[in-house]
Amino acid sequence: MPTDPLSTTFAALADPTRRAILARLASGQCSVTEIAEPFDMSLPAVSKHLKVLERAGLIARGREAQWRPCRLDAGPLKEIHDWTEQYRQFWEETFDRLGAYLREIQSKEKKHARSRKK
Amino acid sequence: MPTDPLSTTFAALADPTRRAILARLASGQCSVTEIAEPFDMSLPAVSKHLKVLERAGLIARGREAQWRPCRLDAGPLKEIHDWTEQYRQFWEETFDRLGAYLREIQSKEKKHARSRKK
Repeated sequence: MPTDPLSTTFAALADPTRRAILARLASGQCSVTEIAEPFDMSLPAVSKHLKVLERAGLIARGREAQWRPCRLDAGPLKEIHDWTEQYRQFWEETFDRLGAYLREIQSKEKKHARSRKK
Repeated sequence: MPTDPLSTTFAALADPTRRAILARLASGQCSVTEIAEPFDMSLPAVSKHLKVLERAGLIARGREAQWRPCRLDAGPLKEIHDWTEQYRQFWEETFDRLGAYLREIQSKEKKHARSRKK
């Protein structure tokens, strides 16, 4: 099990259901029952996912005894966003190279088309 | 095991050693032996991490038989960056609220200090 905060966040996000729960909470806080609705999942299964998200600090839960609403906490998502930012130059270079390659192919195709017309 | 690309990337990044390997490759491609050096880890252990990164498309390996250099592939990091971007308004709101709260505290402290001077 990961112990550093960044690893815990990445691990929590490595599941499509947990990411869908975050997307649901982006439209407002709601109860566990409301979160479970679209997933065709048992409440214990949803609770397990919520615990993982809560441990990663991605959601927080109200303290009301009957209705403990969950709400999104986007702080750890900013951490991940900032972490990926350091690699921006690498993906931009990749797309620049891809763009240059595509332009080269297009230019060759145009030349080829012109020489066939002659 | 996660099967969708985004989950595979998140799972691959949920480990400090694997993130350190990516940071190492950001300064240029290198061999498995060179990658292993700073980690005090066996080559098989490093190879296992490299396989996880390769499966996630985060690194690519050369085809030379003797020296298979690894290089960073930042494409999946852009996917993660773009995915977190949709939550930007939430972390910005959080920091705005925190800023407002701090300003409120500072203003109260100043008033308190002035009333004690009188």
